[in-house]
Formats: sequence, structure tokens, C-alpha cells
Amino acid sequence: MITGHNLVGGVWESNSNATTYKTVNPKTEEILPSIFEAANASQIDIAIEAAAGSFETFAATSFKTRIAFLKAIQKEIKANSVEILSAFQAESALPEGRANGELQRTLDQIERFVELLEEGSFIQATLNTKGLDLRKMLYPIGPIVVFGASNFPLAFSTAGGDTISALAAGCPVVVKAHPYHAGTSELVAQAIHLAIKQSKVPTEAFSHLGGQSHELGMSLVSHPLVKGVGFTGSFTGGKFLFDLAQQREEPIPFFAEMGSINPVFILENKVKKDTTLPAALASSITLGTGQFCTNPGLIVICDSDPETEFAIHLGEAMESLELEPMVHSKINKKYIQGLNRLKNLKGEIHTHLCSNSVAALGLVSAKYFIEAPNLSEEVFGPYSLIVHCQNIDEMLTVARGLSGQLTATLLSTPEDEQALRVLKPIIQSKAGRILFDGVPTGVAVNQAMQHGGPFPASTDSRFTSVGSDAIYRWLRPLSFQDCPNALLPEALQNENPFELQRRVNGVMTNVRL
Amino acid sequence: MITGHNLVGGVWESNSNATTYKTVNPKTEEILPSIFEAANASQIDIAIEAAAGSFETFAATSFKTRIAFLKAIQKEIKANSVEILSAFQAESALPEGRANGELQRTLDQIERFVELLEEGSFIQATLNTKGLDLRKMLYPIGPIVVFGASNFPLAFSTAGGDTISALAAGCPVVVKAHPYHAGTSELVAQAIHLAIKQSKVPTEAFSHLGGQSHELGMSLVSHPLVKGVGFTGSFTGGKFLFDLAQQREEPIPFFAEMGSINPVFILENKVKKDTTLPAALASSITLGTGQFCTNPGLIVICDSDPETEFAIHLGEAMESLELEPMVHSKINKKYIQGLNRLKNLKGEIHTHLCSNSVAALGLVSAKYFIEAPNLSEEVFGPYSLIVHCQNIDEMLTVARGLSGQLTATLLSTPEDEQALRVLKPIIQSKAGRILFDGVPTGVAVNQAMQHGGPFPASTDSRFTSVGSDAIYRWLRPLSFQDCPNALLPEALQNENPFELQRRVNGVMTNVRL
Repeated sequence: MITGHNLVGGVWESNSNATTYKTVNPKTEEILPSIFEAANASQIDIAIEAAAGSFETFAATSFKTRIAFLKAIQKEIKANSVEILSAFQAESALPEGRANGELQRTLDQIERFVELLEEGSFIQATLNTKGLDLRKMLYPIGPIVVFGASNFPLAFSTAGGDTISALAAGCPVVVKAHPYHAGTSELVAQAIHLAIKQSKVPTEAFSHLGGQSHELGMSLVSHPLVKGVGFTGSFTGGKFLFDLAQQREEPIPFFAEMGSINPVFILENKVKKDTTLPAALASSITLGTGQFCTNPGLIVICDSDPETEFAIHLGEAMESLELEPMVHSKINKKYIQGLNRLKNLKGEIHTHLCSNSVAALGLVSAKYFIEAPNLSEEVFGPYSLIVHCQNIDEMLTVARGLSGQLTATLLSTPEDEQALRVLKPIIQSKAGRILFDGVPTGVAVNQAMQHGGPFPASTDSRFTSVGSDAIYRWLRPLSFQDCPNALLPEALQNENPFELQRRVNGVMTNVRL
Repeated sequence: MITGHNLVGGVWESNSNATTYKTVNPKTEEILPSIFEAANASQIDIAIEAAAGSFETFAATSFKTRIAFLKAIQKEIKANSVEILSAFQAESALPEGRANGELQRTLDQIERFVELLEEGSFIQATLNTKGLDLRKMLYPIGPIVVFGASNFPLAFSTAGGDTISALAAGCPVVVKAHPYHAGTSELVAQAIHLAIKQSKVPTEAFSHLGGQSHELGMSLVSHPLVKGVGFTGSFTGGKFLFDLAQQREEPIPFFAEMGSINPVFILENKVKKDTTLPAALASSITLGTGQFCTNPGLIVICDSDPETEFAIHLGEAMESLELEPMVHSKINKKYIQGLNRLKNLKGEIHTHLCSNSVAALGLVSAKYFIEAPNLSEEVFGPYSLIVHCQNIDEMLTVARGLSGQLTATLLSTPEDEQALRVLKPIIQSKAGRILFDGVPTGVAVNQAMQHGGPFPASTDSRFTSVGSDAIYRWLRPLSFQDCPNALLPEALQNENPFELQRRVNGVMTNVRL
């Protein structure tokens, strides 16, 4: 049941003096009945101090304990899935299929971290026993703050990849609930709290705080006992909080995935020959009403015909699609503002607004685009800008001018290979994931996935927020020199009790010493 | 031969209009004859643009090419070692043994990266071929600026760990020479330039710029085409440049190792029983005239005797040692200022100045130390502060109050085990390396070494600046989705031409697909 309370250092607190807020169904615009209490300054302090106080104990838990905890989270989310899905749909108006899909993805993500802990080699145990006895492993960095994301009420929020990767690492977590889906967030927090009580992890290691004010997020990021932050959201929000994290007396790792325009480059022969492209791209641009981080916001085509017909075909394909509303009226408003800004650039940029949805398409010459760098800023929503290059040189210039991206897609036929070989190295410096077929929406959660990219796609291209490698954001190497065997963490002990693959004097092995 | 010129984008440039400077022998105070030209703004631009221009080509080089390049650097340094060692000793006044040792360490460090490239698994090739074909590897982040360190003219300077790890990663490097050893730095740069000309690496990928002004470093860190920075030095310098790097329009990874006070905790029974400790600690405190990053600047002892004799014994051990001068008169001046600041705190802190060297020792009660946090600031040089705890509780409070450290040392006897088990988890959150025997000076260069630590010891505790893992500062994951085999980097191709250990569908293997 949604209570509107905050989970403060392992205790659900109701506060009759709290500022309150409600959530809204973005489709019906109905104000939902639950009343949520905003966390106050004292609750923020208590939650973070409790997290910090539990850190040493949590960090020392065995992988077995953490596995049991993560499995209990799965179990508790499943046990309350009907209520969670109902809140999800009420607060986001996302369709049932998406709700079910996102719940399953959330459970699957947890499973990936269970597997990671079961296998154990992520801890990177490295033993040098010749000369000085030096043994290194990864160790959690401390309490982490996780910001729920507006566009993924489950998979990138309360029990999403940020929270679960931090808990798997042994880091306490304080979740800042996204106010657009405060009820969904609270229900998931209840599941995590029920799970933590069944486990040997200290209950203080998980808190859940809500509120609508920016001050809440700012206080969390600024708190001296917080040692890292995970964020998925807009550039404006992410960059603001990143700056705050770097300006602290003790700067801390702040991983923000801030989205990008995910350029799709279509080489000349592909534009001419692949008639399936407009439909495929139209689906990708409008998928989830354009609210995916990997939404293709820029389509760079090479077409020597000055009157390219590609835009017409793509526009037609988009016209035929029906769209759900965006997850919040504020996001919709910002999207419409973005479109209006573009419409005012008449002449140079041709904007096509779909008649039966908010989807839209722009068309601009490469020449103009190259001179107008703000055209490559993201318009978050079901919009894409076609940049028309009349030759490969224009396309290379467009590519060189782009900033960092989560993804870039290079679509070609074998006849385009020469052009592709010139374009590819440029793109390799710009993106975290490069696709050679298909569309960028759809992010597989596995070890070969990279979801992150050079700034401004993310604040640190050396990490990912999707896939099991997301755990490395919260771990640091720690070396033990001449440590008595009994005092070593189990992963580094002679007996190798977990039978881990370890690097022993340079060789990977799972032997005992 | 030292020319005083700058290496700008692969070309040695002389500039008759340049601002010039000279180096000084810190022992004799003799001004050395070479005249060095400071790099100007245009040379900075050219060097960085050349680095950026060479990036895609360098990034695409095979491991074999990079191995040949690194081996050529070793060869060229060896070929000119007499001149390099002579400049090293003239500019640093460090003794011959240290000069030879540091040269050998520099060559050994290069060898570690040769081995890393030969083995190849550091690239973390990860292939998922079921469902979407997704293949990930690490890819260089772009041009790196390396600051030479004053206290290691070879091992942490021009061909030191920062430069070599970046070159091994496939990142172009622009070295900012340390002005205290500009001649040594230039000679090493000459060796690297000779090596790059023999290799298939673009000559533009290595530049070497000198100058005394802070503006040089600031311009390099601020340049939009620079993608990362390696720095070893003081907190003041490192933090200033770190802030600059984070305030850029595009923030970049800035790894600074800024030293620390490397606390040594000595538990009650160890203080009483181990009579060898004063001599061992005296050597460590004064080693290299106290100019090592891991110099023990804080010794926290547990001794229930209010009149502890430990300070007397340590003072006596330090008296007997003769010290070389510090590497520069400015560093010496700053050290003396630091000591004077402490001497003025009479009454609360007892300061013992050695009569036959600049070494010094302080003694303070834990009670006073806990209330005076600025006492835990580093005094760079052959100085250590003894904090006298009368019981383990005081020691735990001292430990909890400390900020991040490169190392912490816990010395105990088996009778101290109970106290040690309480102290250890606190220390695990504070340090990058924990020693249970010996002294913190002396940093083995191997894969189990961690040289870095929670802020302010370094700017990012998730990385190291010593050991082959130092390469991960300059690499980011890059995923290829549905990429034609022929277009993939060799490390990800079906044929596995390098026979790398790769993670294929979750399993480590070196098979071909």
C-alpha cells in the first residue's frame, strides 16, 4: 500500500508537518489520491548518517549474503507486482505491455548482478606472493545516492541498475524518488526494505526519500558522507548536480547518463536501396513517445539528389503511427517548446509536424547544420532532424562536429564500404556504442553492452550505467601488503574459499595457495 | 645534448623570441648552463592539435606496433643513459644510487606495459553473439597531458608511468616538463622522439613542452582537444588543475596523485615489544629526504604510559642519519615554513629538530590532535608527527577523523589482534594500500599494487598511477553492434588473431568463433 512516507535509515517515518505532493496521470490528467511527504533536512541527515554507519558492516558481507539480499528483492517485487504495475501505469500512463516489460527487465537486471556475484571474478583478486606479499581486490567506495529517472519508473529508478549495482558492490544506497512516479518508487522501496530485513545486510543500508524540490537532490549530492552518485536524466539536471559534486570539499564520482541525439548515418547506396528504412526509423523515433535515451534524434543522410525524397518517406511513415502521451505534462511542454524553437528557424529548416500525434521531423542541409551547432542539441521526445549531405565530405564534416554520444549508427551497403571506412574512425571517438544495422533504441543488458559515452552523453565515458559492468562505478582497488591470512578478505585468502578465478603472480587461476 | 627546445607536434622547434629559464643544482646552488625556451601559446595549440590529429591513427595501431614503440623507448633511453643520469644528478642532486635506481625503475615500468600489451587481456574483449551481435573492448579516450613530477625526475616524469600507460593505451601524449629538471626531461623526450620515428606510431603523437609559468599547465588542461590529464604533485597544484579540468565546457578525467600523510598505527604491544621500530621508521621518514609520496607523516601510537618513550627513541634514531638536500630550494623553503608553523604551537605539540639535518619530529597528544584537524595536513619533507593515544578508543577516534590516504600501516603483535580487528575496517575506508608489516615507502610496480586512494590522496580512488592497471585511466568501453567482421578491431574479430583471452557469451576463452 502506498503510504506517502519516507524510509529513513531503515525506518519508515511519517511526518505530519511535512510538505506534501501528489502524482498525476499524464493521460487523463487526473490527480492521483496518494499524499506524499517530502523528506526534510533532518531526515536527509539521518538517512545518510545511517548509510555511512552501516557501510563497514555491509562492505564486509560475503557475496552469499548479497546474493540472498538481491534474490529477496526480486521475490518481494514479484510478490507485490500487481500493485506496482498498477501504480506504474497510473503514474506514467505507459501501456500495459511496457509496464510488464519494464518490470521483467528490472527483475532480469537484478539476476545479472546475482550471476556476477556468483561468478565472483569481477572483484579482480590479484595476488603477488613473490617478494612483498601484495594482494589486491576491489572494495566498495561508500554510500551512494541514486536519482530515480522520469522515463523509466522501474528499470532506471528505485531498484534499477544504479541501485542494484551499488548494493551488489556493497555500497549503502539512498534513493531520491522521482516525484513523477513517487508511488511506484515507494512500493519498490517497500520491497527492498522487506528484502533487507530478511537478509544479513544492515537495514540502515537502504533509504528512500521523496520530494519535489531541487534542494533535496542538492542536499544529497552535497552531503560530506556521500561517496558517489548515479543519475539518469537531462543534461541540464545532470550537469548541474555533477558540478555540485565536483565543487564539494571532497569531489566524488558522479555518474550521469544525460542522453544524446544518437546520430544515424545513412550512406548513399543505403539511402537509395533500402526501402524498409523509413518505417524502421519512424518506429524507433516514436518508440515510447521518444523518451528513450537512445532515441535517434539526428539522421544524417548522404544523397546526391538535392531534392532528396527520404524526408518525405520518413514523414509518411511517422504520420501513420499513434503515440501515447509523454510521461509527464512538464516533459511534453518542454518538448513542444523545443519544436517551436525549431519552427521559428523557417527557411533553413523544414519542420514537418505529424497530424495525428506530437511526432515531428526536421530537414536541414548539411551546409546550414554545420554552421548552426545548437541544432545538434537534444529535443527530448518523438522528434528527429534529418541532415542532408550531398556528398561524403559533408557527412564527414557533420560527424567531426558532433559531441559525445551514447550511440551512433552507421547504415551502409557493401558498395558504401570505402566511405564507411573513412567515417568509422571519426565515430569511434564520439560514441559508446556503434551499430552497423538496426536502430539504436533497445539496450540489451549484458556484459558486452556499453551505455555511456563521451561527454555530454555521460559525465565519465570510462563507465556504463547498463549491464553488469555498471558495478565498477562503485568499486576501487584496495591492496593489502603482508596481511595475515586470517585478516584478509575471503577473496584474497590462501584457501580461495569462493574458488574465484584470481590473477596469482600474473596467471589467471582458481588454485589455493 | 640538451638544446632547450620544445618538441611541438613531432618537430623540435627553436624560438629565439621565447621566454627562457635555467635549472639549478639544489646541493651546490650552481645555476646550470642550459637555456630552456618556454613554450608559447601557439606552440601549445600546435602540439595539442597535432596530438588530436594523430589520435585516430594511433588508436588504430596494433599492440605489436605499440610494443615495438615502447621497446624502442627503452632502447633509446638506455643508449643515452650516461647523459640522462648526469643531467638527473645535476638537476636534482639526488645521489648516484638513486639516479641509477630510478632509471632502472623507469625501464622496468615500460617493460610492465610491454608485457601487458603482449598478454593483451587488459583490452577486456567481451563478445555476446547470441541474439544481437554485441562486442565490446576498451578504446583510448584521446590526447592526454602529463605533468612531470618534481620528486621523480624519471619514474614519474617524461617517460614515467603516466606517459607510458597513456602511450600503451593508444593515447597521444603532451608532456609538460617539470621546470626543476627541464634538461633531464628534454633528454628523455629526445629518446621518445627517436623511438617514435622508428615505429609506425605517428610522430605527432608525442610532444614535450617546457616553461616555468602556471599558465602553461593551465592552457594545456583547458584545451578543448585534451581528453585526460595525469598529475603527480602537491595537493595545492593538483586540486587547482583538477578544478580547472572539471570546470571546462567538457569536463575530463583528471587523475592527480597528491600524496598523503600515510599514517602508521602502532598498537600497544607492538610499541612495547618491537625495539627495531624506531630505526625502521627513522629510515622511512628520511628516505629520499622525505620526498616520497608514501612518506610516513603521521605515527599514531597506543601507549598507556603518559610519558611515552617512543618519541625519544625515534628522535635518537633520526639524529644519527645524514640527509641529502631536497630536490629544489623552493621545496626546502616550504618545508621549513611548515615546520615553523608547527613550532609556534608550543606547549601542545613538542617539536624535535634534528641537529645534523633538516629532519624533524613532532609529538602531540591524541586529545589535542583530534581537536586540531589541520595537524593532519601534509608537511612535505623528512618530518613526522607522533600522535600519542593512551588507549585504543583514542586511536579509533584518530583513525575515523583522517581523510583519504595512499597508504596506512597497521603494526601489531598477535596480542593486539582484538584491537586490530576493530581498527582495520575503519582504515579500509580510508586508504588505497594497507600494510601490516614494514614501512610505506617503497612502491612495488606490479599488478597487485594500488597507488592512489580516497580524496585527497588522489582525485579518483577508482584508479592507480603505479602498476600496469594505470592504463585504465585512459581507456573507455566501446561496443560494436552487428559490425561486419572485417570492420571490427582485430581484438574482437571472429578469428581472434592475437589469441586473446576473451569473454565470449559469459565464458573466458581464447577460441576462434
